[in-house]
This record gives sequence, C-alpha cells and structure tokens, in this order.
Amino acid sequence: MSTLISGGRIITAADDYVGDIFIDDEHIALIGESLDVSADREIDAGGKYVLPGGVDVHTHMDTFFGGTTTADNHYEGTVSGAFGGTTTIVDFAAQYPGESFVEGLGNWHTKLETNKPVIDVGFHLIVTDLKNGGSLEDLAKLPDEGVTSYKLFMAYKGTDFHVDDETLFKTMQVAAENGSRVMVHAENGDVIDVLVKEALAQGNGAPKYHSLTRPPETEGEATNRAIQLAHIAGCPLYVVHVSCEDAIEPIELAREKGWDVVGETCTQYLMVDFSKIDQPGFEGAKYVYTPPPRDARHVEACWNAIRTDKLSVVSTDHAPFNFKGQKDMGGTDDFSKIPNGPPGIEERLKILHEFGVRAGRFDLNRLVQLFSTTPAKLFGLYPRKGTIAVGSDADLVIFDPEKKHTISVATHHSTCDYNLFEGTEVTGVPETVLVRGQLIVDNGELVAQPGAGKFVKRARVGEQLAPSVAV
Amino acid sequence: MSTLISGGRIITAADDYVGDIFIDDEHIALIGESLDVSADREIDAGGKYVLPGGVDVHTHMDTFFGGTTTADNHYEGTVSGAFGGTTTIVDFAAQYPGESFVEGLGNWHTKLETNKPVIDVGFHLIVTDLKNGGSLEDLAKLPDEGVTSYKLFMAYKGTDFHVDDETLFKTMQVAAENGSRVMVHAENGDVIDVLVKEALAQGNGAPKYHSLTRPPETEGEATNRAIQLAHIAGCPLYVVHVSCEDAIEPIELAREKGWDVVGETCTQYLMVDFSKIDQPGFEGAKYVYTPPPRDARHVEACWNAIRTDKLSVVSTDHAPFNFKGQKDMGGTDDFSKIPNGPPGIEERLKILHEFGVRAGRFDLNRLVQLFSTTPAKLFGLYPRKGTIAVGSDADLVIFDPEKKHTISVATHHSTCDYNLFEGTEVTGVPETVLVRGQLIVDNGELVAQPGAGKFVKRARVGEQLAPSVAV
Amino acid sequence: MSTLISGGRIITAADDYVGDIFIDDEHIALIGESLDVSADREIDAGGKYVLPGGVDVHTHMDTFFGGTTTADNHYEGTVSGAFGGTTTIVDFAAQYPGESFVEGLGNWHTKLETNKPVIDVGFHLIVTDLKNGGSLEDLAKLPDEGVTSYKLFMAYKGTDFHVDDETLFKTMQVAAENGSRVMVHAENGDVIDVLVKEALAQGNGAPKYHSLTRPPETEGEATNRAIQLAHIAGCPLYVVHVSCEDAIEPIELAREKGWDVVGETCTQYLMVDFSKIDQPGFEGAKYVYTPPPRDARHVEACWNAIRTDKLSVVSTDHAPFNFKGQKDMGGTDDFSKIPNGPPGIEERLKILHEFGVRAGRFDLNRLVQLFSTTPAKLFGLYPRKGTIAVGSDADLVIFDPEKKHTISVATHHSTCDYNLFEGTEVTGVPETVLVRGQLIVDNGELVAQPGAGKFVKRARVGEQLAPSVAV
Amino acid sequence: MSTLISGGRIITAADDYVGDIFIDDEHIALIGESLDVSADREIDAGGKYVLPGGVDVHTHMDTFFGGTTTADNHYEGTVSGAFGGTTTIVDFAAQYPGESFVEGLGNWHTKLETNKPVIDVGFHLIVTDLKNGGSLEDLAKLPDEGVTSYKLFMAYKGTDFHVDDETLFKTMQVAAENGSRVMVHAENGDVIDVLVKEALAQGNGAPKYHSLTRPPETEGEATNRAIQLAHIAGCPLYVVHVSCEDAIEPIELAREKGWDVVGETCTQYLMVDFSKIDQPGFEGAKYVYTPPPRDARHVEACWNAIRTDKLSVVSTDHAPFNFKGQKDMGGTDDFSKIPNGPPGIEERLKILHEFGVRAGRFDLNRLVQLFSTTPAKLFGLYPRKGTIAVGSDADLVIFDPEKKHTISVATHHSTCDYNLFEGTEVTGVPETVLVRGQLIVDNGELVAQPGAGKFVKRARVGEQLAPSVAV
Repeated sequence: MSTLISGGRIITAADDYVGDIFIDDEHIALIGESLDVSADREIDAGGKYVLPGGVDVHTHMDTFFGGTTTADNHYEGTVSGAFGGTTTIVDFAAQYPGESFVEGLGNWHTKLETNKPVIDVGFHLIVTDLKNGGSLEDLAKLPDEGVTSYKLFMAYKGTDFHVDDETLFKTMQVAAENGSRVMVHAENGDVIDVLVKEALAQGNGAPKYHSLTRPPETEGEATNRAIQLAHIAGCPLYVVHVSCEDAIEPIELAREKGWDVVGETCTQYLMVDFSKIDQPGFEGAKYVYTPPPRDARHVEACWNAIRTDKLSVVSTDHAPFNFKGQKDMGGTDDFSKIPNGPPGIEERLKILHEFGVRAGRFDLNRLVQLFSTTPAKLFGLYPRKGTIAVGSDADLVIFDPEKKHTISVATHHSTCDYNLFEGTEVTGVPETVLVRGQLIVDNGELVAQPGAGKFVKRARVGEQLAPSVAV
Repeated sequence: MSTLISGGRIITAADDYVGDIFIDDEHIALIGESLDVSADREIDAGGKYVLPGGVDVHTHMDTFFGGTTTADNHYEGTVSGAFGGTTTIVDFAAQYPGESFVEGLGNWHTKLETNKPVIDVGFHLIVTDLKNGGSLEDLAKLPDEGVTSYKLFMAYKGTDFHVDDETLFKTMQVAAENGSRVMVHAENGDVIDVLVKEALAQGNGAPKYHSLTRPPETEGEATNRAIQLAHIAGCPLYVVHVSCEDAIEPIELAREKGWDVVGETCTQYLMVDFSKIDQPGFEGAKYVYTPPPRDARHVEACWNAIRTDKLSVVSTDHAPFNFKGQKDMGGTDDFSKIPNGPPGIEERLKILHEFGVRAGRFDLNRLVQLFSTTPAKLFGLYPRKGTIAVGSDADLVIFDPEKKHTISVATHHSTCDYNLFEGTEVTGVPETVLVRGQLIVDNGELVAQPGAGKFVKRARVGEQLAPSVAV
Repeated sequence: MSTLISGGRIITAADDYVGDIFIDDEHIALIGESLDVSADREIDAGGKYVLPGGVDVHTHMDTFFGGTTTADNHYEGTVSGAFGGTTTIVDFAAQYPGESFVEGLGNWHTKLETNKPVIDVGFHLIVTDLKNGGSLEDLAKLPDEGVTSYKLFMAYKGTDFHVDDETLFKTMQVAAENGSRVMVHAENGDVIDVLVKEALAQGNGAPKYHSLTRPPETEGEATNRAIQLAHIAGCPLYVVHVSCEDAIEPIELAREKGWDVVGETCTQYLMVDFSKIDQPGFEGAKYVYTPPPRDARHVEACWNAIRTDKLSVVSTDHAPFNFKGQKDMGGTDDFSKIPNGPPGIEERLKILHEFGVRAGRFDLNRLVQLFSTTPAKLFGLYPRKGTIAVGSDADLVIFDPEKKHTISVATHHSTCDYNLFEGTEVTGVPETVLVRGQLIVDNGELVAQPGAGKFVKRARVGEQLAPSVAV
Repeated sequence: MSTLISGGRIITAADDYVGDIFIDDEHIALIGESLDVSADREIDAGGKYVLPGGVDVHTHMDTFFGGTTTADNHYEGTVSGAFGGTTTIVDFAAQYPGESFVEGLGNWHTKLETNKPVIDVGFHLIVTDLKNGGSLEDLAKLPDEGVTSYKLFMAYKGTDFHVDDETLFKTMQVAAENGSRVMVHAENGDVIDVLVKEALAQGNGAPKYHSLTRPPETEGEATNRAIQLAHIAGCPLYVVHVSCEDAIEPIELAREKGWDVVGETCTQYLMVDFSKIDQPGFEGAKYVYTPPPRDARHVEACWNAIRTDKLSVVSTDHAPFNFKGQKDMGGTDDFSKIPNGPPGIEERLKILHEFGVRAGRFDLNRLVQLFSTTPAKLFGLYPRKGTIAVGSDADLVIFDPEKKHTISVATHHSTCDYNLFEGTEVTGVPETVLVRGQLIVDNGELVAQPGAGKFVKRARVGEQLAPSVAV
C-alpha cells in the first residue's frame, strides 16, 4: 500500500517548506519538490500543513484510580487522540503494591490486546513498591521490554501510588544505570494531606478546595526535591504536568546549570485558571485534576515557559472521568472524593495552534517541537516517531489552518461526558491523520481498523529508535 | 555594684564611636563622651573595642545524641563561650519521643540548675513527636515559658530526632499562630540513609564518607522544602548551619520575594573544607559534624553570603565530642558511628574578626550584626541583649584588636580534647567579658561565679524583650 | 548652652530603646537611662521618637537651570528641610563650562554666606567641563576642600550639564585615586534628544510627553553604563534618583557581585506615578522632573528596592520651580521648556514613616538608615552626622508618631507655590528639630537664627568624619 | 545537471536520519530512503554526515580598515570558506562617511563582479554617516536591494566607522519600520580611547595591551546600551562577536523578557584566551582582533552560552591581515597600529564539531543550528539556505566524521600567512561541498569555477526567502 501526499506545507521541528511525501507501506520513502509517482492513495495537501503526528507521553487509559476507572479505554482514548492529531501515546502502565513489574506491565499489554488502539502505544511504568512486589533487579531489566521510563508519585499520600523519597531515590539510581528516564508527579503529599483534612474538618468541601489545599508551593517544593535527588543519583529527570511558577523556577535553575531535567506542562494549564474550579455548585468538579487549576498568573507563566524552553513538552494527562457517575461518585460536598483527572487528549494541537502560533507566542516549528519531536526524542521514539523524514514511520497529520471549529463535548470523540474547553473557538484543525501509512482519520471521518495501533518498544535515553526496524 | 568602662571604641550593629559606659548593677545606665563619675570598678578600654556580648543561638550542651553526651555541660560550655566573647546562648532543649514538651523543657532547666552556667541561657525546644508525647495544644503554650522557637530535624532518619513533613508542617502552623520561629536542620534523611548504607556495604567507612554520603544537594533540597512549607504555613523560618551554595540559593530566592526566611552559618563552614575530613587514618573524625565539611567553593560561598545578608547569623553548633573516647566509640572504620558535632563556641568572634574584618570582607558593624544583634533580634532577646544601649543588659566584651593569639586545644576552655581550628593565628582577642555587669572574664582570667548566668525568657517574634524588667 | 531630652524612644540605624540625651553645646555628651542632670533647656520626649537628623544628599538650592533659578535659596530651602526633620544637606555646587572648579565652588560658598542656611550644608561638585575650565589636577584637589563627591549628568544633551563618556570616565579615574565618590544622573541624552524632537515635531507638547520621551530603558541603559565605567575605573559609584525597574536591575546585579555601587531613590518615585503627569491641561507640569513619573509598577519596584537594599538612600532632589511664573515660562504647549525639578525637601521623613513604616514595608531602623545614617556614611559625614551617639553632633528630631497631618502647600515651608503630595494624610510628624544643639524648630515653630547652619567639610570615602573636631 | 548523494547520515537543525538526496540543477528535488534514480553525478556518502552548507554572516572580504585591506578578496575568502563547509557568506558592505548608501553598496557589488566568489554572497550594510552621505530615506529603501540588515560600530572612536548613539538609534527606528535587523559591534569607544592613550603614554605598546585596554566591561556596557536602544526603537537586534560574560549577561536578560535580541560569538572566542596575545615579542599580534582575547573563564562562558541559546550563532569575523606586512605595518611597539581582525572562515565547522559535539557539549542538531540554520533564518536566507529540504538550494557538505586533520597555515586555503588555531588536531572534516548543486570542493580538491557563487537578495525579518525563485 502506498500513499502520496502532495503540495502540503511540511513543518518539522526546524523546517518549513512545500513538498510531496511518498509513503511506501509504513514508512516515508520519498520527499520531493514535485513527485512524479503514482500511489495507491493520493491526498492533496495544497494549502494545508503537513505535521509529524503528535506524541502524547502522558495518558491514563483504562486506569483504576480514585475508586473508579478512567472513562476511555485504549480504543476510545486513541480514537479521540487520533482526531486531535496524536499518533503515538506513551501510556502509564502501573505496578500496584505487591505486584511484580512484569505483572503490572502484563496487565497493560492485556488491555492493549483487548481494546485495540488505533494509534501506536508505548508504556511507562508506574513504580509504587520496591519492598513487597518489585525488586531493584527486575526494575533494572525493564528497558529490555522497551519500557525505558519510570513514573513515581510524590503526591497522593495514603494511596497506592504514593512513594517516599527512599523509593524515589533508589529508582533513580537504577535509571541512572540502565538508561531510563525518571518521571515524577511532584507535589508534597504530607502537606496536602494535612490541608485536605483541615479543610474537610472545617466543612470546606466544595470543588475549589481541591485547588486551595494544593498550594503552588507544594508543587514547587516537590519539583525541586526530585531535581536534587535526580542530580545526586545521576539520572535524567522529567517533571510531568508542571502548572505554576513555583515549579518552573527550580526547573529553570537546574537547566541553567546544565542538569538533565525536562519539564512538561499540559493543555489545561495553558487554558484553565482558578475561576473555573471556583464556580457555584458542583460545576467546578469538572476541573478537579492534579495539580489543580491555578491563578491566572501561573497560566501565563506556563505559556512563557514553553516559549523559552524552560518547559519543553506539552502533553495532556488525559484521564477522563464522567461528570455524571464518576466525578460525583462521592457526593457533591467532599472534593477529596472526586476522582482526579481531566479529559483532553483531542484538543492539544488545536489549542497550541490557536493560542500559541496564531496568538504570536511562538512559531510552527516550536509547536512541532512541543507536540511531537521533543517528547519523541526524550522517550526513545525518535527518529521513528516525531518527525517527517525519510525512513520514519508515516505518522502524519494534514492540518487545515483556516478551518474554524468550536471545541465541545458535542463534537469530541472521547467517551467523556464533558469537555474541559467547552465552547472554545479555534481556527485550524487536523483533517486527516495517518499512522504508519494507515489512514486513521480521513477528512474528519474515522476510518481506522481497531488495532491499527501497535505497541512500541522504546529505545534507551540517548539512543535512537532505529527507523528501519519494522514495529 | 557599678562599673565604668572608659575610652573604648564602641561598636554596635550600626555605630562606631569612642565613649565611656557606666554600668549600674546589671544595666547600662549611662554612655558619655567622657563620664565624670566614680564607680566600684573601673576598666580602661582605651585602644580597645567595646562590643555587645555575643549571642550564640546554636549550642548543644550536655546533650545525649549519637549514643553519648556532648562533652561540655552548661558550666563548661558557657565558660568556653565567655572566653570567646559570648554572653548569651540559646541552647537546644529536647523533647525526646514519648515525652511531653513540659518534661523535655524541665529536663533542661534541671541541667541548668545543676551545672550553673556563667553566661545567660535561653532554650529552643527540639520537637520530635506530636503523636505520643507532645500535643499541638501544649506546643502552642511554650511561648508562655519564654520558649519562642521550635527546632526540627529533617535529617537523621532512624533516630529519635528525625521528623517527617507532617510533623514539621503542623509545628509550623502552630508557630504561625503563636509568634514562634521554626528552626530546621535541613538535610534529606531518606537519601542520606540510602547513601550511608551503600557506602558501608561497599566497605567505605573512613571519616570522609561522612561528607560523601551527605552531598550538598541533600541540604539544598531540604532547605527549599522547609522554606516552601513555612511559606504555606505562614511562619517565620530559620535555617540552621547552612554550609553550601545549594542551600544558600533557595534562601536567597525566598528573601528576594520578601518571605520571612533567615539563614545561619557556623564558624566551621567558614574555615573547614573537605580536605580536613579527608585525612589519612582517623584524624578526619574530628571534622565529623553535620552538615559535613564541603569543597572549598562552598566555604567561599558562605563568606559571600554573610557579606550580602543572604545568611544573617553566624553561630557555632557547639556540640563537642572528645576525639578519644567519644569520636572513636564505634571504632575507626565506620563513620556512621562517629558522634556528629563540632567543638567551637569559643572561636566565633576571633574568626569573624580575623577572616571577616581584617581580611576586608566586611566591617565591624557587620561583625556585630552577625555575632550578636541579629540573633538577639530574631530570637526575642533584643534590646535586652544584642546591643550597647542604655537600659540594655551590661553584656559587654572588651576586645583587644592588636593582640596576637594562636587558637589551640592548649589554650581553649572547652573540655573537648581537640580544637577544630588548631594552630590558626589571629590578631584580636576578647580580653574582658561582662554579663549583666558581672565580670566573667577579666583580662583573660576566669573570675565568674558558677551560676552567674541565668535563664532568659524570650519574647515572641516581632516583640521586644523589655530591657527594664529584671531577669 | 546645654539641653536635656528626656524619656524619648531613641531610634538609630540598629537600635530602639528609651533613654535620656544630654547635649553639651553642639555635641551629644551623655545618654542615660534616666539622667539626673540639669540643663539650660529641657525637652520632654516621652511618647515620642528621637531620631538622628535627616541627611539629604540631593538638593539644588538657588541653582540656575533650564533658564531659571530654583525657587528656594539656601535659607528658604533649609528652613523647609528643617521642618521635615532634615538637619544636613549636601547641595550641588556646579562648575559651569569654562569655569575652574575653584570658581564654581566659590560661587556656592558665596550663596551660603549670603543666604544663611539654618541647617548644615556640604557640597558635591557638578563636573561639566574638563577641557576649558576644569583640569584633572584641580579636580583631584577638591577633597582638600571637604568636597569628596563629583556629580555628572549623562542626560540633558545640548545643555551645559551634559557630559560625554570620556569626561565621565576620566572623572571616575580621579575619584578612584583621591577617595571621592562619583554620582551620576543616568539617562541616555542622545536618545531622549531624538525622542523629544520627534514628539515636538508631531505636535505632542503636553506635559505627559516629558515622561513618554524618557522611557525607562534610557535610565536603565545609562545606569548600567555608569556602573561598568566605574568598575573599570575602580571608583565608588552612587546613582542618583533611581526611578524604575530598568535601573534597579543593573544596580542589583553589580551589588551582588560585590561592586561598590549604591543607588538612591527620591520621595517622589515612591509616591507619584504617570497618572499625575497625565492630567488634562497644564496641571501635569507640576510633575515635570527627571527622571519622570513612571508607571505604577515602577513605584512599587522602588519601595521593594529600598526594603531589600538594592537601593540604599532616599533623598529628595529638591529643585522647586513655581507653577506660576516658572513651570509655565515657556508656555503650556511645549513640555521641553518646562524647567525640570520637584519641590519636596520637607516631606521625606513623613512619607517614609507613613508609607514605609506604618504600611509595614520596613521598620524604624530601616527608616533611619535610608533617611540619615547611610547617606551620612556614604558621603563622609559619619559619625559626626547620621546617628545618635555620644560625641556626634546633636542633630536630632523629636518625632510625634501619633500626630495627624495633611501635607499641603498651605502648611509647607518651601517658597514653592505648590506641593507635590498635596492632600496626602499622614500620621507622624517631626515636632522639634535641633542642629548641633541649636533649637531650629520648636514644637512646630521656627526659632532658628539665619546662619545657624554651617558648611561641613566632608571626609573621603572610607574615612570617618572625626566627631571631636569642631565644625 | 543532476546529482545523487546516497546513503549519508543527513543532519538538520532537528533531524538525524539516513537517506539519499537527489539534486536537480540547483535545488534539492528529492529525498528518499533509497532512491532508484540515475544522475549525472553520484556521490556515495555512506558513513558520512550530510550537512546543510554553512552560513557565515560575519566576514570582511577585501575591506579597507586600519590603514590596509583585508588579505582575502571575495574569491580567496570564499575558497577558504568553501573548504570549511561554508556555502554562503553575508559580507559587510560599507558606506564610508560622505558616501550615499547606494554608492557604498555599489562598491561591494563591483568587488563581487571583479573577484568572482565561489560560494553565495549577501551583503549587510555598515552605516557610518546619516548627516553628509546617507539619508534616512535612502536607508529605508535598502531592503528593496536585498539588503535587510544594518551594521553599526559603537567602538573605534576616531575612525570612520564609529557612530554615536543618535546615529545608532535613528537607524534602529528605520529598521523597526522596514523589516531590517540592526547589528552592533558593541564596545564603548570613549573608554577604550582613553585607556589606549594612557597605555601608550605609559609606554605599554605590546600586543597584550590590545586586550588590556578593552576590558570586558566596555563590551558588556555597549551590548546593554544597544539592547535598550533597540527595545525603545522596537527593532530586532543582533550583537556580533560576543566574547565575554559581561556581554552575555544583558543578552540573556533581554531574551528572558522576550525581547528580540540575538547574540553571536565567533570561533576564536571559543578557542583563544588571553595567554595567546600575552606572548613574548610580537607573536601576540596574530591575536589582535576585536573584541580581544579574554581570560579563560570567558571562553568557557561562550561555550555554555551557545549550548543554552543565550548566544545563537557562531560566525568567524573573518578579516585576515598577514602577520608579515600588515600586522606589523605600524612597527612592533604600538599595539594600536596593528590592524584588527582574525583569519578563520575555514575552521568554524571543524572546531564546532571537535570541541562542541565530540567534547559532549551539544549534539549535531545544535551544531547545524549554530553553523547554518539559525543565521539563515535570522538574515532572510531561509529556507533557500540553512537546511536540507526539498526545494532548498543544494548547498551541502559531505563531512567525514572520522578523518583526522591538523589545522595549519600549511593546509588552509586563505591567503593569510598564519592560522589562528595552528596545530589544533581535530577528527572530522568537510570533504565535499556543493553550492546550488555545483561541486565546489570535491574530496578535498577545489573544482569550482570562479564566479560559481552569486549575490543573494535577502528577505526581510520574519519573511521567508522563497526557495522556488531562482537566484
């Protein structure tokens, strides 16, 4: 099967030119000024952008957390992602306490086999327990399975996911040895636990107290702690979902010193401020995710940080819970019982384009870096993923920069019963999406076969993922 | 009893002038250009400096720690202090786990009564346990006893002193309410514990591994953590014994933002670098204190920080253990068994004068700030202590700026069997020392009555300690 | 003649205590808890503050500039100063082009003899010309005349005062040699000249264009230029009337590096923002001074800078021009013809107390530093001026911290026909003021003899002004 | 004429993959995994890197300066450049005082026609005079001639090139309007002039005084001045040949604020420190260029700055003067008579590869950014130049990363009689170089026709240079 995409404006992390792309089976075989070839399928991209498919390294499909399971499984979530121009996710497999890492990872492979994603999928592993279930030896072997990143939670004291500094540090030591990257959810669990209990004791249960009991300093503190520990251990660090100045500051300081620290923010931290969670009644529950919505100045700080590369990746932390039946499962007067997590895998590209590029904050190359190339490079997917180059997987987005669209639950493809950015108007939408040459979304219609997406074994830190090896 | 000190160059935190001081009983009654009064005792200070007596807010007299008790009790330690120009200490009383705060405090009052200090003494309280022994309610009442500062240890995991962030944060909340200042020993206990065990497992037991298993990042991390937690709680913070750039940086950032954070360093961090602990054999054990000796660049960073008020106080952390019989009590091949702590209460003024003032790093006013006035103000002793003003306690040092002296165990007055700065030559020594008008050291001779020093009840943060009230 | 001031709360740059002060002739002879002496004059200061007299190192009395002469001569201006608690000014004597330095200085001595100030007066010398009038050799001798600071204008291109970098740098080299301090008015004259001409050419003549043609970058630029040049020359630098973040930033950076750079702001930069000059009609002309009123964020930046010692002195730049007859001398439609300068010598202490101390920005000690001690130390007046200590000149202010007052042209003592802070309400006013033991203002009434104030020969940088030498 | 380059590792500013490149006439027509086409010329690049041709935006060919003319004309200099992998230069045309801009530009076109470069050439215009020769109106029209950048000298007081702030600022205002970029040689001319005269007066004429009379602060100052002026004017700024921390600091601050300021360093600032100019005799004269060689810490600061994008371009400032006959034309005892300028157009790529990539300071993508893509984008050459993409000019370098080479006058291709980096050993050299599909250097042999290089009209700031238009 071959495909010819002709006349598009091809945008990569550095380039911007007009050309034709010829796809042979799964790979980009040829790029030309004007290709004189025939193909099984021809797509006219004149007047459109052709972008590398998005890489979203922060999703939680089909994951039990907070007493319930995220609303999208790997099929549903990847369909939504594909409509948003994302062609690869790196999803969080979890070792729950008492399990071995192999068991945890196996559970996620089973989910994948059962639920048949339509875009490619890699796994990070959430490490929760090095005493009963997981061993340092087994941890060290995970890169052999194509899992080259470990995630740890400094937050959520009292839950399965929370780890102490000892567990965090020992994992970092392993990562330093075996070429993995450590990812942290950085919030001070102890302090938040005290504040949450105090708020509830005082009868403060409205959704906004989710924000008020997680002050920015708790995130800034834990971010710095992770950075210092990683520097001692000598491992590369990735701080997920940075939401505020307090956390940007230590990342900036570390990068200035040349330390291997990278920060990620997510679409919601660029769009949602405290006023959203501070709405009357239970409406604010839609915005209960972690870290929580912050004051507006932090939103602007996140935009500035992705412009200046203090933060280097924009992901989504897609972890949808339905407003009816999930967000309200603990009643409406105890914010601590609202499952934490936002929907949003589908809106990332549209929002970066509208409020990043069109608003003049950065150019298209920077958009591609944030959306695709940098996460691909950081997590062992490049050059197979993350760019438009011959030999790379033909993961491509045909993006219409002029088409107007209103973001809404009415039009999105997640199963989630609300949209975080409801009513936001944008100009510019992904129109057609290919994964390894397969047409997934065609002119706004889903045409993918379930299971079109495959598991990707990722390379170690600093290594390339050979594009010539079939996935 | 009255005393006249005539013709000295009087130095305070801001002033520098020549005058006479008349002391009526315990107080400074009169300062004049040339006083035409007679007194029971007359001291000619011509050609000398007259300084406010030193305030050392970081000492551990007669304290059980690391399996043994510090070598100086409150008599011995205060004699040594007096010879160094220190006229008030604020010593660390401790609540050990299971004890109430009143018990802990009572134990230290007993030590004081038994051991009869020769200079004045206040107490901080070390908080170790809010679950079994101490209650938040009792903690809140301590300022009524004249104890307006709480100390907590983020380090020393596995010992009685170590607390988690929950205990730290709850104490901070109490302090924010009741006008106390929280003091932290800031090091990451978890990481150090891992590193120490690894070092020992690898057979690395020499004293230098005490430094190598406590990298500067562990201090920088914990310092920032304490700062962020204090800012959430709204309490004033004091970071004890700052030893490195990594810890100075977050203090500087917080102060720049206007947060109520103060940092202290100690004499040893201005004088001792890693080469001292990295000596052949067991000699390095003399320098086993915490935080440990650092690379030379950190030493210079501490000097720069006290010049620029990033760090605001110089104390001693006087916690002497004899080289023979204490430092070696766990043998000589396991650094983790060496009791942690340095001698040094006597050398502070001499060293600040020699390497601060005479070396051109700062002036005499800054010396007085670091040595006396600032700690007095921070810890509720001012204006009774910390300055030379009428109404203040007549705690005074006649300092000979021309006299040469070699620091040595042979001449010091601590019972400790070694001196940390052995052989250091200085020009300028305290010659005569008065505490509340009582002659303690007279021309280099001890003349104090045991018990000349009394307990001082300290004022709350932001309040003055009324000088007119007899102690 | 002797004076006893009893029971006041004595505030210095570091201290805060209650006591009595006995003045013998011109000096403070005695400070006591409760002095049992009789004096020719007795002042009950119970419930009042006793402060060191203010030192205002930035005034322009009787100075021809912008085509007219400032409204207050040395009598009128010092009377106004005395009512504001200022007991010493260091006024700007000027060498006009073609004059020798001795001539320029002589002219100001003549003004002093003619106009008989009521408070003490020192002189800086404005250097304008090193080619025709002044020589480097003569410049080097000025400290022998008690003139130990040179002022240069980087602004005002096209006027007598403007100098190029060559003149500035050569003066700095002299200062580095002879122990003088260089003061700069830092604005980029070239750029402002272009902008002013463009504004006028476009018909933009309203007062607000005075601000708009002097953007903050012109001040920031010149400030940094002066700093770098001073660092090459090795001379101490003092940047006058800093008004904005753009200028604070390079001062902060230099001080952090340990360079001898000090910044001053003035009362107006703490109180007046752009909205004042941007009033309808000609009202804004009252606020035509240089640097001009800035946006509100710069006002807050100045407050923060004096809190953190990025800026170290608050002066007034007192250079009053009457609204009628002077500010309007060039008509009302050409801002470039409005003489530049503000009234304000009288309001400094009241404003620092109200908006600094009472507003919680800093404490009384910091007020005294900014108002008196630091300028005295920087400009060779200490310890004769700038503190309350035995031997010092009895320059004292009895300040009633509870008295309410409305600042107004109706009550001020300058001859200027408007007040910059008209209608501002404060609590706390200077009540009684002494200069070298002479009563100048007594309970709000002027009682001074003209000529009560004398010229002060100042010491070189780093030297003390011997308090025992009669002035 | 067509060319096929097969099997090379293609490196761009973002990508790194193996592929074939087919060149049709002057353009890259096709990039493929494995192209099955025939071509007139075939080059096997297996095991080699294929890089975009270098863009050197800082050269002075055939330029009269300092009393003589640079040693290489546009043929000689571009031959040397080609051997170094540079395929485009933007050379400095100059308006000398009294000339119109059209005249100045015309003179450089004539040089080009006469001397027949072998690589492509654009022109910046050096502005020296807005009063007698040049008018603002004519200046504004230069972009129509494909000249979209103005260069001004803040240094060299007393020469034709020096401009005052008025000229600089007015040029910036024009550039802000017409889409040009302003380039500054940032050193304080006044101060340097004073220091040079003082040095000579004191008999200090050795080459090292060239460094000692241009202290880093003179560069830092002028850099900041240019930045502030550009920000007022609203024009994009490019600071050429940044050599020290003092100049990096203000660039960093401006970029952090989001200002359009870009800094360039040159190869020599990454390799040569003060010790080179501080050699016995006249040897140091080889290193007389401006800014001068600095202390080693500045060298390291420049490396760090290009890693962190504080500095964004590495050029050469190629302005060779022969050691015999030019450097010595004023004798050997007056450094001020040594013509200022270094040879070096040929060594840029080799040095960035050896000491940047191979030393682990940055990766190959960053090398390409610094060497080619970023200057091309900044100066209106992209995407015709600066990348490897279809449609772009076939300006390509086949680079052998394993070949060892010793840099030397014996092997370089400039006419200059010495090499700045004599004896430096590197691994990795450009082997074959093409300009618009023409073979210029083939396996280390010059095969170009004189005149193979053409003048390039550049696009305005923010615009693309349409790759489809034939040059």
